[in-house]
Amino acid sequence: MIRLNYHLPGTAPATLKPRVDAATDPATLTLIQYDAEAIFEGEFDSFDDLMARFDPAKVNWINIDGLNDLDLLRRIAERFKIHPLALEDVLNTTQRPKVEPYDDNIFIVSEMVYFEESRALTFEQVSIFLGESFLLTFQEERGRDAFEHVRKRLRMGKGFARQRKADYLAYALLDGIVDHFFPILETLGDAIEEIEEELLEHPTKATLRRLYEAKRLLIQLRRASWPQREIVNVLMRDETGRVAQETAVFLRDCYDHITQIIDLVESYRDISAGLMDVYLSSLGFRTNEIMRVLTVVSTFFIPLTFVAGVYGMNFAFMPELHWKYGYAYFWALCAVVAGTTFFIVKRKKWI
Amino acid sequence: MIRLNYHLPGTAPATLKPRVDAATDPATLTLIQYDAEAIFEGEFDSFDDLMARFDPAKVNWINIDGLNDLDLLRRIAERFKIHPLALEDVLNTTQRPKVEPYDDNIFIVSEMVYFEESRALTFEQVSIFLGESFLLTFQEERGRDAFEHVRKRLRMGKGFARQRKADYLAYALLDGIVDHFFPILETLGDAIEEIEEELLEHPTKATLRRLYEAKRLLIQLRRASWPQREIVNVLMRDETGRVAQETAVFLRDCYDHITQIIDLVESYRDISAGLMDVYLSSLGFRTNEIMRVLTVVSTFFIPLTFVAGVYGMNFAFMPELHWKYGYAYFWALCAVVAGTTFFIVKRKKWI
Amino acid sequence: MIRLNYHLPGTAPATLKPRVDAATDPATLTLIQYDAEAIFEGEFDSFDDLMARFDPAKVNWINIDGLNDLDLLRRIAERFKIHPLALEDVLNTTQRPKVEPYDDNIFIVSEMVYFEESRALTFEQVSIFLGESFLLTFQEERGRDAFEHVRKRLRMGKGFARQRKADYLAYALLDGIVDHFFPILETLGDAIEEIEEELLEHPTKATLRRLYEAKRLLIQLRRASWPQREIVNVLMRDETGRVAQETAVFLRDCYDHITQIIDLVESYRDISAGLMDVYLSSLGFRTNEIMRVLTVVSTFFIPLTFVAGVYGMNFAFMPELHWKYGYAYFWALCAVVAGTTFFIVKRKKWI
Amino acid sequence: MIRLNYHLPGTAPATLKPRVDAATDPATLTLIQYDAEAIFEGEFDSFDDLMARFDPAKVNWINIDGLNDLDLLRRIAERFKIHPLALEDVLNTTQRPKVEPYDDNIFIVSEMVYFEESRALTFEQVSIFLGESFLLTFQEERGRDAFEHVRKRLRMGKGFARQRKADYLAYALLDGIVDHFFPILETLGDAIEEIEEELLEHPTKATLRRLYEAKRLLIQLRRASWPQREIVNVLMRDETGRVAQETAVFLRDCYDHITQIIDLVESYRDISAGLMDVYLSSLGFRTNEIMRVLTVVSTFFIPLTFVAGVYGMNFAFMPELHWKYGYAYFWALCAVVAGTTFFIVKRKKWI
Amino acid sequence: MIRLNYHLPGTAPATLKPRVDAATDPATLTLIQYDAEAIFEGEFDSFDDLMARFDPAKVNWINIDGLNDLDLLRRIAERFKIHPLALEDVLNTTQRPKVEPYDDNIFIVSEMVYFEESRALTFEQVSIFLGESFLLTFQEERGRDAFEHVRKRLRMGKGFARQRKADYLAYALLDGIVDHFFPILETLGDAIEEIEEELLEHPTKATLRRLYEAKRLLIQLRRASWPQREIVNVLMRDETGRVAQETAVFLRDCYDHITQIIDLVESYRDISAGLMDVYLSSLGFRTNEIMRVLTVVSTFFIPLTFVAGVYGMNFAFMPELHWKYGYAYFWALCAVVAGTTFFIVKRKKWI
Repeated sequence: MIRLNYHLPGTAPATLKPRVDAATDPATLTLIQYDAEAIFEGEFDSFDDLMARFDPAKVNWINIDGLNDLDLLRRIAERFKIHPLALEDVLNTTQRPKVEPYDDNIFIVSEMVYFEESRALTFEQVSIFLGESFLLTFQEERGRDAFEHVRKRLRMGKGFARQRKADYLAYALLDGIVDHFFPILETLGDAIEEIEEELLEHPTKATLRRLYEAKRLLIQLRRASWPQREIVNVLMRDETGRVAQETAVFLRDCYDHITQIIDLVESYRDISAGLMDVYLSSLGFRTNEIMRVLTVVSTFFIPLTFVAGVYGMNFAFMPELHWKYGYAYFWALCAVVAGTTFFIVKRKKWI
Repeated sequence: MIRLNYHLPGTAPATLKPRVDAATDPATLTLIQYDAEAIFEGEFDSFDDLMARFDPAKVNWINIDGLNDLDLLRRIAERFKIHPLALEDVLNTTQRPKVEPYDDNIFIVSEMVYFEESRALTFEQVSIFLGESFLLTFQEERGRDAFEHVRKRLRMGKGFARQRKADYLAYALLDGIVDHFFPILETLGDAIEEIEEELLEHPTKATLRRLYEAKRLLIQLRRASWPQREIVNVLMRDETGRVAQETAVFLRDCYDHITQIIDLVESYRDISAGLMDVYLSSLGFRTNEIMRVLTVVSTFFIPLTFVAGVYGMNFAFMPELHWKYGYAYFWALCAVVAGTTFFIVKRKKWI
Repeated sequence: MIRLNYHLPGTAPATLKPRVDAATDPATLTLIQYDAEAIFEGEFDSFDDLMARFDPAKVNWINIDGLNDLDLLRRIAERFKIHPLALEDVLNTTQRPKVEPYDDNIFIVSEMVYFEESRALTFEQVSIFLGESFLLTFQEERGRDAFEHVRKRLRMGKGFARQRKADYLAYALLDGIVDHFFPILETLGDAIEEIEEELLEHPTKATLRRLYEAKRLLIQLRRASWPQREIVNVLMRDETGRVAQETAVFLRDCYDHITQIIDLVESYRDISAGLMDVYLSSLGFRTNEIMRVLTVVSTFFIPLTFVAGVYGMNFAFMPELHWKYGYAYFWALCAVVAGTTFFIVKRKKWI
Repeated sequence: MIRLNYHLPGTAPATLKPRVDAATDPATLTLIQYDAEAIFEGEFDSFDDLMARFDPAKVNWINIDGLNDLDLLRRIAERFKIHPLALEDVLNTTQRPKVEPYDDNIFIVSEMVYFEESRALTFEQVSIFLGESFLLTFQEERGRDAFEHVRKRLRMGKGFARQRKADYLAYALLDGIVDHFFPILETLGDAIEEIEEELLEHPTKATLRRLYEAKRLLIQLRRASWPQREIVNVLMRDETGRVAQETAVFLRDCYDHITQIIDLVESYRDISAGLMDVYLSSLGFRTNEIMRVLTVVSTFFIPLTFVAGVYGMNFAFMPELHWKYGYAYFWALCAVVAGTTFFIVKRKKWI
Repeated sequence: MIRLNYHLPGTAPATLKPRVDAATDPATLTLIQYDAEAIFEGEFDSFDDLMARFDPAKVNWINIDGLNDLDLLRRIAERFKIHPLALEDVLNTTQRPKVEPYDDNIFIVSEMVYFEESRALTFEQVSIFLGESFLLTFQEERGRDAFEHVRKRLRMGKGFARQRKADYLAYALLDGIVDHFFPILETLGDAIEEIEEELLEHPTKATLRRLYEAKRLLIQLRRASWPQREIVNVLMRDETGRVAQETAVFLRDCYDHITQIIDLVESYRDISAGLMDVYLSSLGFRTNEIMRVLTVVSTFFIPLTFVAGVYGMNFAFMPELHWKYGYAYFWALCAVVAGTTFFIVKRKKWI
């Protein structure tokens, strides 16, 4: 349900915890190096090879997919002066998104959110170190991330992307993460609209389940989006001097997006709370309708059945039974009883 | 339900997105140019013609209806030094209302709200650039806006309108937008009052639906009004020097109006939450009433029917059947049973 | 329900709107002029006559009842340098209570609250201009206000009233308005206590309606009391120098009263929310009780009726019918069935 | 329910209101005078006698029980330079707890809370004036207060009590008031635990009532405890210099206690909200259980009764009646019908 | 339920209260003394023996298990200049977690949380005094605490533990306490997931109870975690100079953990509130389903039973009884009635 990947109580702070299911899966190292004129892109087998290409005059985006090779991580940390606590947080992949300024770099933890099979949200932590001429990103898994469009824009060289420094790249990545929320919210919005229609027309038990699932997703999205806004806000007001004024304008834009997301999440929460009320009311209403039918039917026939029972009795002396128009009298009696009932029921507006 | 017009995850920031359904529909350019003495009003076919009339000594209100001609927009942006991110926000028409001060102008995003067929709210984004001697407004559609009365007042030359600068015009437009909320709230208030009466007198399923729709509208109005207040507040405390002190007094008035709107929305929310409780209670009460009738009828007749059933049995030896007053005894028995039941039911205050 | 007296979208700011239903009803002008030694009190037919008596060395309280004579209002505004926006707010009588400092006076909008026929709240806006040696008050209607006791105290000359300046008079009026809340809250408190007793003893549909009305009143009182506190708070911390330090001590006292009112309103809201829960629970409980009776009666008699039905059948060969003790055997069977049912029902604690 | 002792709308501020039911009951004056060496304790008949003993070199704690002797109060006020508004608040005994610094003393209004017959809370206002070498306390009633233990400690001379000044005494009294909350919360906690057990085991209507009463008490406790914390906080950060730094440390301790009380009250509120949900659910569950029994019984016997009714008919030609094994066939038919019903009911998991 | 261990109203502040059930259980004194080179660990019988080993050049962690030996506590307090109020708080073991800076040390009250038999939370107060070269910890019970891993790390001498001062040790202990929350939250998360599944599939009364218990635990966890965050926050921003800058970085990490815990608790609260709604809805749904069956069965058979009753009557003249196809006609009539009912019921979508 909610991913929890804590370190065991009492383990030393800044302990690197090898991930159990990961040892067989080596990390992938990629470097994207660019300035306004040129771009280089490559995958490396060893960190040494990669560092041989490192050029402090350009922007170097080093991406590491997979967090299992502790040795590698330690060497990277040493080379880029990463604080041990920060490195621990890279590995401990259920961190709350946050920004931590260190002397040598700014450490950003964020979460990419994926919507799988349109039912469940999955999260992947991405850890970003923003330094003078480099940007390190650590991802949990290979294969997917929210950054493909950033890469494309860098390759094409259009827009601002290539003219700016690493701080702009960090912004671009965060913006990519934030933009990933929108299609999820759209899908969810559609789902809620369907649930709404179902609820108002013909609620079933499955509707309740779908509504509950939507609410669960909203709780998760809320938990994911608020700290994301905090991150962007902290970077926007950065006091370390690593984030340029021009980038701050862009971060403000990103801040607006995430605020819009939070607004939507809160509105959807309000709407689904309202829908739960509607569901409960519908049930109550339906109960009444069913009850009304039962009561009307019973109220009509129970007295009549009693009357019929009376004239089915075998008493030796029952004058009515021998009346000439006894049977007609019975039906007349029935008509009177039914008529009275009808009148009462009508007045109560039950039929 | 909730309009969502995000740019695809990963598109470059400050990308201009042509609106799919819009290419055939050219933009309309209108200029209203005035000072205390004179006013000129005209529609132009080309931006160049319009700019030929531009006079920095007067207030120039340039209004663009329709956002499809990207070329035109780029030229306007260039001429008035609009930041690329701001231009992107003009096109991306589901922005959250906001104010962004740039070096050359103040960028305001607001939303006009329309109440269609008295059931659904629709929103239209209006983007405003407030500069030294000009005001640019970008609207999504031609034909309707919240500014007609502002134009009339400018034409008549009465009031403050013509004596003041572009900042006052910006205030007047925002005030027009805010005032558009009032008739909507009034209609909604009437609707809620009707719902209230229905609920307390004779609730039906349609009442529930109307109540739910009112709640939905309130969620939307809330989402629309809060950021609007933020806008006015930011402009009121403007630190860029573009908003004159005299205009700030008017903005304070506008701020009071939007605060009153927010107050009303919150009160209506409280009231409709209370109504939902009343509805649920009414259903429960009605259930009880129906049940009571069923129970009373059943409790009276079920024992009597059993007695009648007994004397309808065909046992060879049933002494009562042959009593002289057997039949009378039967009715006496019935009277006793019914009387006892009546007594019990009466004591429980069911009839 | 909620009074809404907005100006039409697009009317110029600071437009004076003549009140439709008011033209035949001229305004009443009264002046109370006093210092520590003497007091003069008079009603005037014309504003000129009144101003002839105006004495800047004394405190001049000019009260205007009725807002229909726009000419008169304009002349007063001109004489006392009232800002056009403030004058508009005087006429637009559904303003949110507020304080606005202008260069020449402090403008205070407040609401007097009346409790009519002990069911509905009505509000009357009172607009106060506090200047150097004068206090202007504008009321919507003649005949009633919250200030009669203030007038009495001025006449008697006891207490601080006559020794102080116009700022103290403004405080006295606000205090009069605040004190008007207490008897309303007391009546409401009594009503809630009655509702509580009814709900716990014998809830009916009327109880629900009364509870809902109490909740509605609380929403209105809340909306009225919060901005009132804001007013007093702003005046208490006044920075314009119009409110003397000695008066601030009294305003602090008034602030405590309005805080106490807000506290009470919030407590009553909590209590009535609790009562709604109790009502719902009571309904559920009652449903259960009714159901239980129905179920017990049905469970007893339905099987017995079946047995009686069996022996009323006309099969040619039914041995029991011809047993000597057949009828007795039938009653024994009934006793067994009823006994078993009784045992089960007893174990379930239904009787 | 909630004590409301407002002065009538329009009475002059700082009016002393004689308490209606009090004139026959004279005030009691007691003095406790101490320094580190000695302590004097006495009850006086007249204020003059008391003042004759007054010694500015020691701490003089003057306690007045009963607020009916307005003359006495006015003389005390004059002697100790009590502000008229403060004196009014002493008499108006439903003040919200508060601290008001005046030039000559600090005025503290607090509430002592008593738990009567373990059902209802009663409050008694205590007004404290903290001056240079004296502490005045005004209580509404004789006979009980929260200060008996403070007196004992003063008499014994142990602890800090006698070494410190009047500010420490004020702290000790407030601490006494705060500590009075704990046994009430404990009783309430026990009550809630009992209610919880009852609700989960066998909820009755009385349980609902008890739960509602607990909630009511919590609302009252909340209203009483929050302003109490404000008082202690204000005194702790006192800027008038009347509260010594050493006493502030003790007030911090007192602040922690009242924070703990508030925490508990909020937790209990959460718990009782949860219990109300449980109660509603239990009712719903019980309804279902009862309904299920009724439905099962009816579903079994109603069809069987119909079959029996059929063979009780008197048609001239009904072949089954004359079959040799007609009666056996009837029972077989019954068995089939009952078996089918049983199968269906079983599959739905109703029995 | 909620542990409440207040001192009796009126006891003197800073009173040491002997714990009733504790006198027979002497305290255990242990010392862990270390610097970067060496570590000493020992249990002592007397405080004098322990102080003989005390070395101000090293870090001295003195742990006292058991709070019954008041004499011992007083001697420790004297030796380490513990404020009497702080010592009282050590003994009064239901303090709200807090940090209090004194002149000679920083006093920290925290709570260790244990999850017993996976149902109930128990808390144990730990009081920490952080001084120049020492750290005192007071625990209520021997046998278990959250610090075992800290001890191990000190023994192993790895990591930062041994290089740092007492402030780092204080951090390590707090971190140990915070990390103890994670496995509890994990267990609770699993429990909630199970409850969720049960609720959506086949809710029973036990599910309700489990849900309620989960909510109770969440209320307790919330009450425990919020003040814990306050503690860490206060220490992080320490202004006394006792907490080194390097330790503050670690405290920030600890702060992130506790924030994550609070986030989780709030999310779980949201989820369980949603589950309660689902439970109530499920009950309502089930009621409807049961009712529907009852109504369908009754609606079918009650009219038929009446018809059968009619032809069981003994009127002398009932023509149908003597028709040749009377019996067939009866069944035809039944078929018509049943068919009509079926048609109605089908149209209402009840079967």
